[in-house]
Amino acid sequence: MLVNGVPGNSISIRDRGLLYGDGVFRTLRAVNGKALHWPLHYLKLQHDCVKLGMTCPDEALLCAELDKVLAQHPDGVVKLIVTRGQSGRGYAPSADAAPTRIWDFSPIPDYPAECATQGIKAHVCSLRLSIQPRLACVKHLNRLENVLAAAELNDAQLHGEQAAEGLLLDAGGYLIEGTRSNLFLVAQGRLVTPDLSRCGVAGIQRGRVMAWALQHGMTLQVRDVELEEALQADEIFIVNSVIGLWPIRELEQRHWSHFPVAAQIRHGLDRQDA
Amino acid sequence: MLVNGVPGNSISIRDRGLLYGDGVFRTLRAVNGKALHWPLHYLKLQHDCVKLGMTCPDEALLCAELDKVLAQHPDGVVKLIVTRGQSGRGYAPSADAAPTRIWDFSPIPDYPAECATQGIKAHVCSLRLSIQPRLACVKHLNRLENVLAAAELNDAQLHGEQAAEGLLLDAGGYLIEGTRSNLFLVAQGRLVTPDLSRCGVAGIQRGRVMAWALQHGMTLQVRDVELEEALQADEIFIVNSVIGLWPIRELEQRHWSHFPVAAQIRHGLDRQDA
Repeated sequence: MLVNGVPGNSISIRDRGLLYGDGVFRTLRAVNGKALHWPLHYLKLQHDCVKLGMTCPDEALLCAELDKVLAQHPDGVVKLIVTRGQSGRGYAPSADAAPTRIWDFSPIPDYPAECATQGIKAHVCSLRLSIQPRLACVKHLNRLENVLAAAELNDAQLHGEQAAEGLLLDAGGYLIEGTRSNLFLVAQGRLVTPDLSRCGVAGIQRGRVMAWALQHGMTLQVRDVELEEALQADEIFIVNSVIGLWPIRELEQRHWSHFPVAAQIRHGLDRQDA
Repeated sequence: MLVNGVPGNSISIRDRGLLYGDGVFRTLRAVNGKALHWPLHYLKLQHDCVKLGMTCPDEALLCAELDKVLAQHPDGVVKLIVTRGQSGRGYAPSADAAPTRIWDFSPIPDYPAECATQGIKAHVCSLRLSIQPRLACVKHLNRLENVLAAAELNDAQLHGEQAAEGLLLDAGGYLIEGTRSNLFLVAQGRLVTPDLSRCGVAGIQRGRVMAWALQHGMTLQVRDVELEEALQADEIFIVNSVIGLWPIRELEQRHWSHFPVAAQIRHGLDRQDA
């Protein structure tokens, strides 16, 4: 673990990341000493810092730190947190706050291979995402909604429901994302993904799937999606940088058993990673 | 500064307070080695922990820690943060996570005495609070909306507007609170404060003002308030545990110069503190 370039596993209790969740983060997959899609992650980090009015650390600096992390941990999950750093009392950010850079590592989670091939069961969470255009798309550190939704999923699992992901609707009733993933529908040969201009996190794996669709001449729609439409889709699948792509085989009363488009996209993304 | 009862000024980078803003906090005023209204603060802490499904630390334990802080810093602002502690990767809280207890201290801010007697100018922020009933009232660590609103207020000050607080409307257009305070209106002898069941933070100073009104036979209404109604009120004022009570003397095009009810309530609260 590195904090501002120095080996360490702690930060100040006056860091705004702790005080206000005033920061952003990235979760990267490391394979053979290489962080997959680093340029996309850095672009997203820049974008998110701009949305919060934060200084984004220099790419060369972050790359040098990432190399140190990868030298020790060539395979697994690398997490980068960038906070607005320390400042005096009060919510107002000071113009001269230097961002805090935090790197952490964890082994790759032990997901069953069938998740990618056979699909997963998903649970519709009762928590509704709040609408906040100023924070929409940004992977910031204010993640209590995800925590509450994940707790709901935990409860469902304790009650015997074998759901591997929870899906979230927003306050307007539209389907937005999973607790830790983005969502796609396949319907009549088109790829559809929820509009994230009011809430949700736009992950880089979502961007990769969208790029794949455009490169392969598949019609792509980014728009509001209702749960009912998802239940009637030919396929649905979730994506993130750690799981890759998992089809959904069961949601509410609906079951799916074939995921030809999801499989094609998953293979396409895997080939890019290889 | 104390972290889990031990002098220190850092926490683990794996603490959920940093990772997700998964925790709550209290800001207390210390006077002559005594924390004002500790029983109210502890009740609120318990309430907030319940809303997040977190274990609230035992009161005796917190009191012992608070005494240590007050022995060193008898006068000023004491901040207590309680996070859900550490747990494995992922949003889901583990049932056995032990909360992290963080105490910090800062001197009393150097506010001009006229703020309380002459009133302040307030600015209406353009940021709209998002609606999330699951988190409403709770003083949790997901405070990016307050940060963005305070940044707006900063900008207004840089452009010459001498506003000392920013007022926030919610996504539905109702007036909710200040960036770091709760809000009251006085109209036709009645005291009105915004309903916080959809968003906002219910501070303990708000509760004290409400209790004062009931004890003094003043009609109290907790309901939706529009900005227009505030602009037509006989008086408006903001409260929190550090500033106490400040009347508003200027908001948009409206000016106020007399605050008899606000002054009466301020004196009433001050007498309870003495």
